[in-house]
Amino acid sequence: MVSLSQLMENEVFMAFASYTTIVLSKMMFMSTATAFYRLTRKVFANPEDCAGFGKGENAKKYLRTDDRVERVRRAHLNDLENIVPFLGIGLLYSLSGPDLSTAILHFRLFVGARIYHTIAYLTPLPQPNRALAFFIGYGVTLSMAYRLLKSNLYL
Amino acid sequence: MVSLSQLMENEVFMAFASYTTIVLSKMMFMSTATAFYRLTRKVFANPEDCAGFGKGENAKKYLRTDDRVERVRRAHLNDLENIVPFLGIGLLYSLSGPDLSTAILHFRLFVGARIYHTIAYLTPLPQPNRALAFFIGYGVTLSMAYRLLKSNLYL
Amino acid sequence: MVSLSQLMENEVFMAFASYTTIVLSKMMFMSTATAFYRLTRKVFANPEDCAGFGKGENAKKYLRTDDRVERVRRAHLNDLENIVPFLGIGLLYSLSGPDLSTAILHFRLFVGARIYHTIAYLTPLPQPNRALAFFIGYGVTLSMAYRLLKSNLYL
Repeated sequence: MVSLSQLMENEVFMAFASYTTIVLSKMMFMSTATAFYRLTRKVFANPEDCAGFGKGENAKKYLRTDDRVERVRRAHLNDLENIVPFLGIGLLYSLSGPDLSTAILHFRLFVGARIYHTIAYLTPLPQPNRALAFFIGYGVTLSMAYRLLKSNLYL
Repeated sequence: MVSLSQLMENEVFMAFASYTTIVLSKMMFMSTATAFYRLTRKVFANPEDCAGFGKGENAKKYLRTDDRVERVRRAHLNDLENIVPFLGIGLLYSLSGPDLSTAILHFRLFVGARIYHTIAYLTPLPQPNRALAFFIGYGVTLSMAYRLLKSNLYL
Repeated sequence: MVSLSQLMENEVFMAFASYTTIVLSKMMFMSTATAFYRLTRKVFANPEDCAGFGKGENAKKYLRTDDRVERVRRAHLNDLENIVPFLGIGLLYSLSGPDLSTAILHFRLFVGARIYHTIAYLTPLPQPNRALAFFIGYGVTLSMAYRLLKSNLYL
């Protein structure tokens, strides 16, 4: 019987696993950033979350929105919208036997672009920093989708 | 040693890879649609995005919401909420050795339903067009989940 | 030639498939919960959705937001933000040859924590019930990411 570990002996797959784990961990950091700003700025979405900051009507004043919190939430949602396609298309692309150096170039560009996108969104840096980071990640995913469909289309 | 390419010699897996790549690319198109409406209608969420449209207070008037932009964003979020379960459950279902024609029927129905859902949401078509598209995609994913758990439950 | 079914003969992978299918089905239930509250409370986001409840201006009064609906939607988005990293990191972790009992402990804790998170969010239970559920799921995913990168880092 063949061991499953052969998947992890495949260099493209190992590289995909490493870069994906890094970019998903980065995305998870956005939850911590949201929690940080909610607690330090006392901005909450649920009555039960601000019960510790006062009784009754006094607590309700913390049920509000805040520019900083909304900015982190938009960055988080943009991550979701872009990392989910990378996860699906990248996994299938990695299994389709691409050239190692081409694959790693795709993964590095994507992860670098998404990290820069977060920095540009949270600082915030002036445009077109964030737009550029977005389009590099978007282009990398489309490039993998194109290569995958070109060599493996089966409808 | 066994080559990884055997995965891509499996017809169910190749079909899953093709349909998933198409539906994820369709989801990515929603980002472009949002950007298109934001730019043509001058509706932005971040001060740095409308800096090019005027100085100071003059630019701030573009920090607003718009029915059309919000509609695209809801369609995008609905895609995420439904394509993520399809991605996970469909991948595992594809690896569980299903019948090829049954599997392809599932994939085709799902991708067709999600494309129709987007058309129904963005046009917009009267209900129950969108509701029907939603429930077909939802039912397909649940059907794959049921088949997967029935043959491979291991808790 | 080696059959694909070997993947499903791997106990860790079968366990991952089962727990993932359960937690993704749970996430899909949130769509039904949103639809339930929207219909019973007559709270809609799209004009075409409330066309059946009245004509013209009479229908527009149902285009509103509702605390209960917004709560379900926040719970759903939190699911997405946390289940997507579990899906990606958990899949790669399962393929990296972990110890079976350690892997199952991770999966059980995550799925249990996310189910409890939903109960705590929708009831709602007083804090720190929801926060605790969130951090258990978060910690489990980070633990899998750490184990994966420690044994398979390839950049």
